[in-house]
Amino acid sequence: MGLRLIPREEKFFEMFVEQAETIVEAAHLLVSLLRDYSDLDHKVMMMNKIEHKADEIAHRIVERLNLTFITPIDQEDIHALASALDDVVDYIDATVERMVLYKIKQPREDAEHLATILHRATEETRAAVGELARFKRSTSAIKQSWIEIHRLENAGDTASRTAIANLFETESNAIEILKWKEVYEHMETAIDKCEDVANILEQIVLKHA
Amino acid sequence: MGLRLIPREEKFFEMFVEQAETIVEAAHLLVSLLRDYSDLDHKVMMMNKIEHKADEIAHRIVERLNLTFITPIDQEDIHALASALDDVVDYIDATVERMVLYKIKQPREDAEHLATILHRATEETRAAVGELARFKRSTSAIKQSWIEIHRLENAGDTASRTAIANLFETESNAIEILKWKEVYEHMETAIDKCEDVANILEQIVLKHA
Amino acid sequence: MGLRLIPREEKFFEMFVEQAETIVEAAHLLVSLLRDYSDLDHKVMMMNKIEHKADEIAHRIVERLNLTFITPIDQEDIHALASALDDVVDYIDATVERMVLYKIKQPREDAEHLATILHRATEETRAAVGELARFKRSTSAIKQSWIEIHRLENAGDTASRTAIANLFETESNAIEILKWKEVYEHMETAIDKCEDVANILEQIVLKHA
Repeated sequence: MGLRLIPREEKFFEMFVEQAETIVEAAHLLVSLLRDYSDLDHKVMMMNKIEHKADEIAHRIVERLNLTFITPIDQEDIHALASALDDVVDYIDATVERMVLYKIKQPREDAEHLATILHRATEETRAAVGELARFKRSTSAIKQSWIEIHRLENAGDTASRTAIANLFETESNAIEILKWKEVYEHMETAIDKCEDVANILEQIVLKHA
Repeated sequence: MGLRLIPREEKFFEMFVEQAETIVEAAHLLVSLLRDYSDLDHKVMMMNKIEHKADEIAHRIVERLNLTFITPIDQEDIHALASALDDVVDYIDATVERMVLYKIKQPREDAEHLATILHRATEETRAAVGELARFKRSTSAIKQSWIEIHRLENAGDTASRTAIANLFETESNAIEILKWKEVYEHMETAIDKCEDVANILEQIVLKHA
Repeated sequence: MGLRLIPREEKFFEMFVEQAETIVEAAHLLVSLLRDYSDLDHKVMMMNKIEHKADEIAHRIVERLNLTFITPIDQEDIHALASALDDVVDYIDATVERMVLYKIKQPREDAEHLATILHRATEETRAAVGELARFKRSTSAIKQSWIEIHRLENAGDTASRTAIANLFETESNAIEILKWKEVYEHMETAIDKCEDVANILEQIVLKHA
C-alpha cells in the first residue's frame, strides 16, 4: 500500500515473523487451557483459528516463492522453514485435539509444566526468526537464541520423562496411560519442532557465513 | 531393445510412473482385504510381492542415477521422490502386517473408510507423478493434483480421528485399543507419505519455475 | 598441537570416525546390560557418558564447519551425517532410559536378540564411515557396507516383529505391553538410523561419482 517499495527479501522476513507469531499464540493458548480447563469449545475454536492462520501464511510464503526470482535465502530453506514453523502449530493443535478426542475430563498437573517449557521455546523461536533479517550483519543474537532453544528442548525432554514416570506410577488404567502418554508426546514433539526451526536457521547462517 | 533410443530423462519418468503404480496396487489390495477379510494368507503374499516390486524399482532408479550424468531433475530430488514413493508402499504393507501380527480377527468398520481415502490419495499421487514428464510445458495439472492430495490428507486426518474416537468409545479392552490405534495410524502415515510425494513434486516444479 | 599440519578435510573424516565409535560403544553397552541386568545405575551412567561424548563430537563438527571454507563434502551433508550418527546414540540411550523410567525388572529374551542386530549394524556403520576418507579412490568397500546395513535393517525389522508378536501372545497386562513395545521400537529406530547414515553416505558418494 502507498508508494513505499518494500524490497522483496524483506517481505519474506516479515511473513516469517508473522508465522512465528502464530506458534507463540498457539502455545500461549495451550497454557491457558491447561490452567483453566473450562469453556473448552471456545478455546478449541480459537486454536483452530490460529492453525488456519498459520496455514494461510505458510501458503502465502510458498506462493510468493513462485513469483520471486531473487530471494535472500535459498528457496529450499524458505520452504523448510515455513514447513517447520507450520509443524509447531500443528503439534500444539494436535495436543488439544487429542485431549478433546479422548474426552479428557481434567488435565494432569505435569501437563502445564511441559506446556510452559513449550511456550518458552516458541518465544525463543520467534526471537530467532526475528533475527533472520539481520543475520548477515550479526549472527550473535540468532546464535544465542538457538542455544537457548536447544536448552529448552532438553528441559522439555526431562519434563516429559518425569510426566510419563509419574503417569505410570500413579495411574493403573492402561487406557488412561495410553491417552496421556500421547498428549505428553505431542507437546514434546512440538518442542522438538522448535528445535528443527533452530537447526534450519543454523543451516541458513552457516551457508551464508 | 531395438534401435529406438529413449532419451535418458524419459527413462526416469517412466520408472517413477512404474513405481507410482505400485502404491495404487498396494492401496487397492488393502481396500479389498478390508472389504473381504478372507483368504488372508494369499492377500498378504500378494502385498509382499507388490512391496518387493516397489523396492526393486526404487533400487533401479538409484542405480541408474549412478550411471547417468545428465538428469532432468536434481539427483537429490530423484532420490527423495523414489524414497517417498517407497515409503507409501512400506506403510500400506506395514498396515497389513500389523493386522496379521496382532492376529486381528475382523476389521473394524472405520478401517475401510480410511483405506478408501488412502486409495484415492495414491491414485492422485500417481496422476501427479505422471505429469512430471510434462511439467516444464505445463504445471497446471500437477498443481491440481497436489491440491487434491492435500485435501485428501485432511480428509484422512478427519477419518482417522473419528476412527480413533469410536475406538475409545466402543472398545474397553486396552490391548485391542493399542492394536487398532496402530493400524489406523499406519494408514494415516501412508496418506501423509502421499503428501510428502506431492511436496517433493512441488519443490521440483518450484526449482524449475 | 605441534607443527604437523593436518589437512582440513582429514580432520572431518577423523571426527566422523570418532563419532561412529560412540554408536558402537552405546550398542555394545546395551547388549551387556541386557545380558546382565545388574548394576543398572552404573551402566546407565556409562550410557549417559557416551551420549554426552557423542553430542560433544557432533557440536565440534558443526563448529569446525563454521571455520572451514573448503570442505571435502558439502556442508549440508556433513551436517546431516553428524546429526544422523547422533540420532543412533540418542535412540540407544533412550532405550535404556525407557527401561529405567518404566522400572522394568527383567528384560524379555527377545530384547537381547534385537540388541545384537543393532550392535552389528553399528559396527557396519562405523566401517562405512571409516571408508568415507577413501571413497573418491574406491567406492566398493563403502557400498559393501551399506548393502550389509540394509540387510541388517531388514533383520532388525523381522526380529522386532517377532518380539512384538511374542509380547502380545505371552503378556496379558496392557501396561507391560505398552512398555515393552516402546523399548523394542526404540531399538528398531536406532537400527533405522544406522540405515539413515548409510543413505547419507550413499548420497555423498552419488554426488561425487
